[in-house]
Amino acid sequence: MKAALIGLGSVGKGVAGILAKKDLGISITGIADSKSGIMDSMGLDILKVLDTKKNHGYCGDRNISSEDIVRKGDYDVLIEVSPTNADSGEPAIGYIRTALSRKKHVVTSNKGPVALAYKELFTLAQKNGVSFRYEATVAGAIPIMHTLEQGLAGNDILAVYGVLNGTCNFILTRMAAEGLTYEQALMEAREMGYAEADPTYDVQGIDAAIKLVILANTIWGDGVSLSDVDRTGIDLLTPEALRLAEDENCTIRLIAEAIPRKRILRVSPRIIEKDHPLVVDGTLNALTLETDMAKDITLIGRGAGSIETASAIIGDLLYIKNHYVQRS
Amino acid sequence: MKAALIGLGSVGKGVAGILAKKDLGISITGIADSKSGIMDSMGLDILKVLDTKKNHGYCGDRNISSEDIVRKGDYDVLIEVSPTNADSGEPAIGYIRTALSRKKHVVTSNKGPVALAYKELFTLAQKNGVSFRYEATVAGAIPIMHTLEQGLAGNDILAVYGVLNGTCNFILTRMAAEGLTYEQALMEAREMGYAEADPTYDVQGIDAAIKLVILANTIWGDGVSLSDVDRTGIDLLTPEALRLAEDENCTIRLIAEAIPRKRILRVSPRIIEKDHPLVVDGTLNALTLETDMAKDITLIGRGAGSIETASAIIGDLLYIKNHYVQRS
Repeated sequence: MKAALIGLGSVGKGVAGILAKKDLGISITGIADSKSGIMDSMGLDILKVLDTKKNHGYCGDRNISSEDIVRKGDYDVLIEVSPTNADSGEPAIGYIRTALSRKKHVVTSNKGPVALAYKELFTLAQKNGVSFRYEATVAGAIPIMHTLEQGLAGNDILAVYGVLNGTCNFILTRMAAEGLTYEQALMEAREMGYAEADPTYDVQGIDAAIKLVILANTIWGDGVSLSDVDRTGIDLLTPEALRLAEDENCTIRLIAEAIPRKRILRVSPRIIEKDHPLVVDGTLNALTLETDMAKDITLIGRGAGSIETASAIIGDLLYIKNHYVQRS
Repeated sequence: MKAALIGLGSVGKGVAGILAKKDLGISITGIADSKSGIMDSMGLDILKVLDTKKNHGYCGDRNISSEDIVRKGDYDVLIEVSPTNADSGEPAIGYIRTALSRKKHVVTSNKGPVALAYKELFTLAQKNGVSFRYEATVAGAIPIMHTLEQGLAGNDILAVYGVLNGTCNFILTRMAAEGLTYEQALMEAREMGYAEADPTYDVQGIDAAIKLVILANTIWGDGVSLSDVDRTGIDLLTPEALRLAEDENCTIRLIAEAIPRKRILRVSPRIIEKDHPLVVDGTLNALTLETDMAKDITLIGRGAGSIETASAIIGDLLYIKNHYVQRS
């Protein structure tokens, strides 16, 4: 199977490195970063391209753009891992639209397109008989989409509850464990590289809400958007609130929850018993699916990281390889 | 897709009831219990058969056997849910062998055949181009096999750790929570219907060891058997041991673990920190997969129950329907 890789940041490098190292039967025929691109329909020497990127800051020819590769490249599947733009979803939406229109499968870790244009892209993929997969957009290495699609096939999903933002979970874990203030814990998260200079996107629950929208649309297909999410962040939480929770053998976590029967679509700090499966520590993510037959199923794992996110992308690529490309 | 159902105990009834209720595109063309059988290649009236079973104790014609249905029935997939015989695996192994030889897919919840004849049956399925699936044999409703096969595809599985026996976990939970002796907790488990009159199979870790063998063979394909498992049960545990663990903010769980790099294949009571993801309460099951890319992924859910086990079987049936039968 031939893949084109758009985006060569941390996740893109992770995916490229794995495809170079593991013999998965997937070659890369095009790679683009924000400045340049390189194509070879016989398959690129991935390690050489990664080396160029490392030494020069760009990966290929400055006259070849992402757009060129998406529009003209020779590939079966587009791996779209350019940076997320949560406002417009561009230019990723355009790349994905073009690839699907060319009857190419698409795998992305980019939350923007999935949160903002899910219905359009999903419908376009169906119309063209190709697969549009985005396991890496929610909860990093946890194979939540595969679990919904295959593992729990036949189940009605009644509700979903999740700890979907590792930055917030780290801050809350540190506040509870050490009695830190929100500001102190945030500073620690920054020092560890878990929080951005501007932490708004994480601590106000926007990131978790986007992931909740992706989950809700995947499960129930009812076209909700970010503005439908009732959202409260963790930035106003006090050490006192956490201490009061601790007194009751509870703690506080930022929980994203979608419960259609109660018309709840919400991200908010919740008091939760310490031995509840969703109480995970540090930057871990966790999800509980409430179903009619399997009842509650909880998944716990790493929500971020270059290789962890790449793992989710590789899972999607192999699914496409085994279920579409090899049979066609 | 047409299915034949062999076994009409708690799990069989669960599967039949779901297929009658949910429109999954799967009809049942043959059903057998231990005393009788019924066939109709146009599809049976499932609710009527369940009603006959309920009112008369048998489901069909006493002149039609399981063997007849397996050998002569008109079906795409055999659902083998007869009682487990952990010593010989029969008669289930024979049924499965016959179905696979007829190029029929097989889905089973029966641990005997998978633990005792995995390699033969897997090879036979491959040879005949059909699928042999057994999600329900390990950890009930938790889709562990789907996770290994699809969700974590491309990952090297480095180790697996699990709480795989709900009876033991219930007993240990009650001993820790109430300071009960093993005998008191076992009696409570019996009263709740979680333990058999002869609890040996559960409390001596045999059931967990069989599931560990199934997992190890599925992941690494190295043909281990029950006698390769280093096994210690929970029947000699004292309340004092649990109290000592509690003093260290730990508890005791019966952990099944397979770690090839350390040549460990073991079921034994282990002292484990209370906030460890594998510390689940009551009859829950939990598994942690240690992988090279996704790192640790933990799954928690119900390990038993008629509908919960049926959920795993339905997942296997739909996988076969979507990936084999509809395309052939």
